[in-house]
Amino acid sequence: MVNKVRLGIVGLGAQGSMYAKFIADGLVPNMEIGAICDVDPDKRAVAEAMYPGVGFHDDYLTLLESGDVDAVVTCVPHYLHPQMGIDALQRGIHALVEKPAGVYTKQVRELNAYAATKPDLTFAIMFNQRNNPLYRAIKDLVDGGEIGKIRHSSWLITTWWRPQGYYDQSSWRATWGGEGGGVLVNQAPHQLDLWQWICGVPRSVYAKVGYGFRRNIAVEDEVTAMVDYGDGVTGVFVTATHDLVGTDRFEILGDSGKIVVENSLTATITRLKKPERDISEGMGMDDVRRLFTGQLDMAEYYSSEVLQFESQWGSQHAGVLENFAANIIDGTPLIAPGSDGINGVRLANAIHLASWTGREVSMDFDEGEYLTELNARIREEGKFSERD
Amino acid sequence: MVNKVRLGIVGLGAQGSMYAKFIADGLVPNMEIGAICDVDPDKRAVAEAMYPGVGFHDDYLTLLESGDVDAVVTCVPHYLHPQMGIDALQRGIHALVEKPAGVYTKQVRELNAYAATKPDLTFAIMFNQRNNPLYRAIKDLVDGGEIGKIRHSSWLITTWWRPQGYYDQSSWRATWGGEGGGVLVNQAPHQLDLWQWICGVPRSVYAKVGYGFRRNIAVEDEVTAMVDYGDGVTGVFVTATHDLVGTDRFEILGDSGKIVVENSLTATITRLKKPERDISEGMGMDDVRRLFTGQLDMAEYYSSEVLQFESQWGSQHAGVLENFAANIIDGTPLIAPGSDGINGVRLANAIHLASWTGREVSMDFDEGEYLTELNARIREEGKFSERD
Repeated sequence: MVNKVRLGIVGLGAQGSMYAKFIADGLVPNMEIGAICDVDPDKRAVAEAMYPGVGFHDDYLTLLESGDVDAVVTCVPHYLHPQMGIDALQRGIHALVEKPAGVYTKQVRELNAYAATKPDLTFAIMFNQRNNPLYRAIKDLVDGGEIGKIRHSSWLITTWWRPQGYYDQSSWRATWGGEGGGVLVNQAPHQLDLWQWICGVPRSVYAKVGYGFRRNIAVEDEVTAMVDYGDGVTGVFVTATHDLVGTDRFEILGDSGKIVVENSLTATITRLKKPERDISEGMGMDDVRRLFTGQLDMAEYYSSEVLQFESQWGSQHAGVLENFAANIIDGTPLIAPGSDGINGVRLANAIHLASWTGREVSMDFDEGEYLTELNARIREEGKFSERD
Repeated sequence: MVNKVRLGIVGLGAQGSMYAKFIADGLVPNMEIGAICDVDPDKRAVAEAMYPGVGFHDDYLTLLESGDVDAVVTCVPHYLHPQMGIDALQRGIHALVEKPAGVYTKQVRELNAYAATKPDLTFAIMFNQRNNPLYRAIKDLVDGGEIGKIRHSSWLITTWWRPQGYYDQSSWRATWGGEGGGVLVNQAPHQLDLWQWICGVPRSVYAKVGYGFRRNIAVEDEVTAMVDYGDGVTGVFVTATHDLVGTDRFEILGDSGKIVVENSLTATITRLKKPERDISEGMGMDDVRRLFTGQLDMAEYYSSEVLQFESQWGSQHAGVLENFAANIIDGTPLIAPGSDGINGVRLANAIHLASWTGREVSMDFDEGEYLTELNARIREEGKFSERD
C-alpha cells in the first residue's frame, strides 16, 4: 500500500500538462508525478523546467518499466489508448485511460478483456463529467427511481464549436487514420457516456451524420441520431461543432417525473404526485372538460425544483485523478471504471455505421464490418496505415 | 361583392361553437353566421337558443344549397374535410377546412386538384398558429434571410397532454377508422404545418412511433421523427400526449444565426456578425489558443435579442376567420391557403409509414401503399369502414 500514487503522465500535450499542473499544485493530494513521457524531444526541456527531478522518457515502455510509477494516464491520440492500457497492466501498472477508450470497439474489447484478467490492478477512464455534481445528482435521482421508468430522453449538445484553425493544428486531427472520427470521437464522448450512464444503453440507432458538413475535414462535424431502447422507449442525440451559439439541453421523461438540464448548470426536476398513467386514468369526463376550458391547474399534480450548479472547470478532472488514486490506495469505488469506456465507443461506432449504411444499427453490430468500413476511409484518405 | 361573409358552420361541437361565438361576439367584423349544421338533432335547440333566426340543417348539403351562406367552415371529423370542401366549392361556396386537411394525402390531393379548378373561390385552412404573432415574426425573419440558410432544426412539442378520459369521450376518437391517427392527426398538425412553413418541406423521414404507448388507444401517443432536407440538412420532431409537464422548444440553426423558441412565447434570436463559416475560417492559430484558454469572448461575434409574446388564445382563430373573409371580399392574401394543408398530412402519413415499415420514407411516398396500410389497421380494428 502506498501513501501517494506516483503517476506516469504519457503525453505532455494540453491534457497531460493540465494534469501535471493539478498534481503539482496540490489539487490531487493522494498523487504525485512519478515520471513524464513524450515522443516530442522538445518536451524534455519543458518537463525538466517545470518538474525538476521528475524522470522524462521518450518511450512509454521505458516509463512503465522505470520503477518510478505506480500508475499511468494516457494523454495520447485515441487510437493508442487500448494498447497503452494493456501494456501498463501487463507490467503491473494501474491504468487511467483518456476518453475515448479507443476508436473502435474491437480494440476496446481487447483492453477490457485483458483488464479483466488483472482484477488487482485499477483500470479507470477519464470521464471527468461523471464527476460533475450536477450529473452525479441526476444519476442518483434516476437510479433512485425518483422519476420512475424512463420513457424518452434527448440531448441537444452543440456547444462544441470548433473553428477550422482548430482542425488544422496537426496532421492527425480530424482524419480517419489519425483520429478515427470527429465530434463523436473527440468532443461528444462525454455526453455519449453520461447519456448511457444515466439513461441506459440503447438497443439500436439510426443516424444522419455530416462529414465535412461545415468544416474542411474528412470526419463528422454534425450528428443527428435516434436510438431505441426497446419497449417503445426512444431517444435523440444531436451534436455539432459548427453551432457558434451552442445548445446544451438534456431532457429525461420518466413515468413519474421529468428532468431538464440546461447548459450543464441548471436542472429542473419535476416530480409527479403519482405515476402519470394513474393521473391520466383517474380523471373523469368532468376533469377533461375542466382541462380543456383551462379550469384545471395541472400544477396540482406535481412539484418542481430547480437545482443550480456552478461551473468549476478543472475540479472534475482533478476529482477523477483523486478517485483513481483512492481506488488504488484503499479500494474506494471508481466513479468511472475503465470497462465502462466501451459504451461510448460502441454508440459512436454504431452512429457512424448507421450513417454509412443507411441502416438502423444494433448495438450488437458486427465489429469486423465497422473496422472494414473504417479502413476503407483510412485507405481513401491515404495518410495513415489501416488498423486491425 | 359582399359586405359581410355569411359563414355556414358545419358541426356545432367544440370548434364550431367557438367560431359561432367569436362571430356573434363581434370578433370577426367582416363575417356573420349564415347557417348552422349538425347531424346531432339535439344541437338544433342549442343553435336556436344561442343564435335565433339562423337556419339549422341536419345535412350539410342542404346548408350549402340554402342560399344563406357564402362560405363554410368544416368542424367535423378529419376524414370528412376533403369531400366537404369539394362539395362546397362545387356549389360556388368558399371553403375553410379545419386542420388537418384530411387523413391521407390521396383525399387531400383530390381536394386540392378540385380547388385548383375554382380559382375564383377562396379555399383556406384553419392553421390558426400561423396567425400567432411569434410564428409570423419567425417566418418573416427566416424568409428575410436573417439567419441565413437553415442547417438544422428541431421541435420538441410534448405539451399536448391528454388523459385517458379524453380518448374515451367518443367512439371515433383515437381509432384508425374514425379519426385516422392520434397526436399526428389531431394535436400536432399545427406544428407539422408551422415547421414546414418556416423550415421547408423535407425530402424523407425516419421515425419511431408509439401506438397506445402510454394510453389505451389504437393510434399514436408518441412520435420521434428525424427528417432529411437534402444537402446534409436534417431535423428532429418529437411529440407526445403523455408528458404531463410538457416541453415546447423549437430551434432553427442557420448559417448566420439561430432562433430558439420556448413555450411558443419567447423567441431568442441570435444574429452572427458574419456567416459562421467566415468566422471559423477567419480565426488563426492564436485565436484558437485564446478560445481554448477562455480568453476569446465569443459574444463578440454575435448579438442576441429576446422577443417576448403573450398568449392570446382565440385571437388566432378569429384572425384566420377574418383573413378568410377578407380574401373573399377584397382579395387580401391568405395566411393559410387551403392547398398548404397537404404538407402536414403528407409528413404525418410519412411518419406513420416509416414506423410501420421500418424504412426511411420519401415525402414522395406511394399514396396507395399508405392507404393499404391504413385500411389494414381499420380492418383489424373492425369498427369502421375502409377508405378509398
